[in-house]
Amino acid sequence: MELKNFFPGDDQKLEDLGDGVKRKITAFHDNLMCVEVHFEKGAVGALHSHPHEQISYIVSGEFEFTIGGEKKILKAGDSTLKQPDIEHGALCLKAGMLLDFFTPCREDFL
Amino acid sequence: MELKNFFPGDDQKLEDLGDGVKRKITAFHDNLMCVEVHFEKGAVGALHSHPHEQISYIVSGEFEFTIGGEKKILKAGDSTLKQPDIEHGALCLKAGMLLDFFTPCREDFL
Repeated sequence: MELKNFFPGDDQKLEDLGDGVKRKITAFHDNLMCVEVHFEKGAVGALHSHPHEQISYIVSGEFEFTIGGEKKILKAGDSTLKQPDIEHGALCLKAGMLLDFFTPCREDFL
Repeated sequence: MELKNFFPGDDQKLEDLGDGVKRKITAFHDNLMCVEVHFEKGAVGALHSHPHEQISYIVSGEFEFTIGGEKKILKAGDSTLKQPDIEHGALCLKAGMLLDFFTPCREDFL
């Protein structure tokens, strides 16, 4: 995988995933990936799981997260940790953006 | 290491590191850690290195980064990737906050 030190945000493409969700991969290499995920109010990140470990940091807006069957409402400055293969999802209560960090890289996103 | 799904930001302590830099650990487990770093204008993250791989995402402000001898000015929405053991540092040009993501966890921060 190509190794770069700098990833200007304007060089990355904001991808419309439909149903009020857009995604921009901001930086990545073999072991780490950072992704902006933009949600409109009412948009849903459906329950899913993957072997990657993940932190989500809420930059703006408000979200109801479900992780391993546990629900919690989070706002800007709050974070979640998803252990490998745990089932998780989110419902956007107020439009906003969160950052997803994965280890290893989500090669399925590239 | 204790495993939690949710890390409300208000529960985490903003630590004053002096010289215009404050740090809040937002979420972590063995393989991942997310840290807010708040800089006043003119504050410096001195050149250093560590075996952890790192992504920095700029949430606000403007920074001159030096990574492996390469310099670049970055603003909100830009990211950097630091490979293990590469020498890196930053100078804050406009007050702001960045998020540092590490793999594995920076146990020296705990």
